[in-house]
Amino acid sequence: RRREMAKSTQLIDNEVFRAYATYTAIVLLKMMLMSLVTAYYRLTKKAFVNPEDTASLGKGDSAKKYLRTDADVERVRRSHLNDLENIVPFVGIGLLYALSGPELSTALLHFRIFTGARILHTFAYLIPLPQPGRGLSWAVGYAVTFSMAYKVLKTVLLL
Amino acid sequence: RRREMAKSTQLIDNEVFRAYATYTAIVLLKMMLMSLVTAYYRLTKKAFVNPEDTASLGKGDSAKKYLRTDADVERVRRSHLNDLENIVPFVGIGLLYALSGPELSTALLHFRIFTGARILHTFAYLIPLPQPGRGLSWAVGYAVTFSMAYKVLKTVLLL
Amino acid sequence: RRREMAKSTQLIDNEVFRAYATYTAIVLLKMMLMSLVTAYYRLTKKAFVNPEDTASLGKGDSAKKYLRTDADVERVRRSHLNDLENIVPFVGIGLLYALSGPELSTALLHFRIFTGARILHTFAYLIPLPQPGRGLSWAVGYAVTFSMAYKVLKTVLLL
Repeated sequence: RRREMAKSTQLIDNEVFRAYATYTAIVLLKMMLMSLVTAYYRLTKKAFVNPEDTASLGKGDSAKKYLRTDADVERVRRSHLNDLENIVPFVGIGLLYALSGPELSTALLHFRIFTGARILHTFAYLIPLPQPGRGLSWAVGYAVTFSMAYKVLKTVLLL
Repeated sequence: RRREMAKSTQLIDNEVFRAYATYTAIVLLKMMLMSLVTAYYRLTKKAFVNPEDTASLGKGDSAKKYLRTDADVERVRRSHLNDLENIVPFVGIGLLYALSGPELSTALLHFRIFTGARILHTFAYLIPLPQPGRGLSWAVGYAVTFSMAYKVLKTVLLL
Repeated sequence: RRREMAKSTQLIDNEVFRAYATYTAIVLLKMMLMSLVTAYYRLTKKAFVNPEDTASLGKGDSAKKYLRTDADVERVRRSHLNDLENIVPFVGIGLLYALSGPELSTALLHFRIFTGARILHTFAYLIPLPQPGRGLSWAVGYAVTFSMAYKVLKTVLLL
């Protein structure tokens, strides 16, 4: 019995699943990086939202002036939220896709394009690049996720 | 060995898991759709947040006037964020629930009610319907996720 | 064949996976709780964002005055968004980590520290505690997720 249990965790030995795990870890780490970028801009631009965060910068009114929005901080935050909106569907649908038995080469194509598109999207947002740079990189990631969802629904549909 | 690996990916043949995969793909696609609705309202109401997005609408001050918030755009964005807040727990807890060995009929009941409630929630938010339309549809989805979490914790608890 | 299918769902019998399922359910429930806290503050502070939510409080201008932001409501909402930004990577990377064959004791250490750190983070945000209380609890959860991602990439890397 113990053996069977151990075996089921060997999902991680399946090559498509390994590819999924690799790219999912990469895009989630990339998304996590946005927290550090936000913190960096908040500290360097001195733009905070919580009063307790400005306590070390002075007392009373001298600290209050750092409770403000900054265009660069807001830009990073929008980029972070866009990651959440797009990487969550990739992680969820990508897992189902990886389990739906795609060819390794097809799966790698999906995972690589999505990951590349999201990295481009972050640069396009933060630099910022002129449109349609950001729009296109967003659309490519969106289309990849949609393509995986189509394969999942075609394979497993049970309503 | 290769055989065992292949077998583990057949999770997708389990009927409860197939139902989970179907409804998860549907609610994640529904959530993704909110990006398109936001883009539609931004373009038709000419209400943008990034200066580079208004470059095609004119130069200088004539473009700047499109950097504004719009009530309808903000409404769609709140609906999208509410999806993130509620669909993420469904996807995570639902996966654990599907693996915890529920009856297919019970699982389908959970998945169908959640999916229906979230679709209603979106319509209630965007039309908008008078309260408690939106509140009730939110509460139903919340209760379904809570019920699945209870089953998961009862089955697997290992602290 | 049916037997093999059933077996694959016994992932839930693996002890590391059971621990993952337990702590994932707990942190996702904790995140869901933030919706109730937000609703509680909106109702007690009478601070709403959707006009249809104030209909029961009066008509016309007398209801309009409740369409306002409130510092406590905004604080809860930031705490909720911070949960999304940090718990989503934990759930995704944690799943891959649980499948990558860690020692049970090591896995439990990761899951327990993350869960404790996120509960502390919520208290630090809502009370609020002076910094670096919130910052440290955030960093601990972040480091745990990073450590799991490192183990995942070391185990499965397939680019």
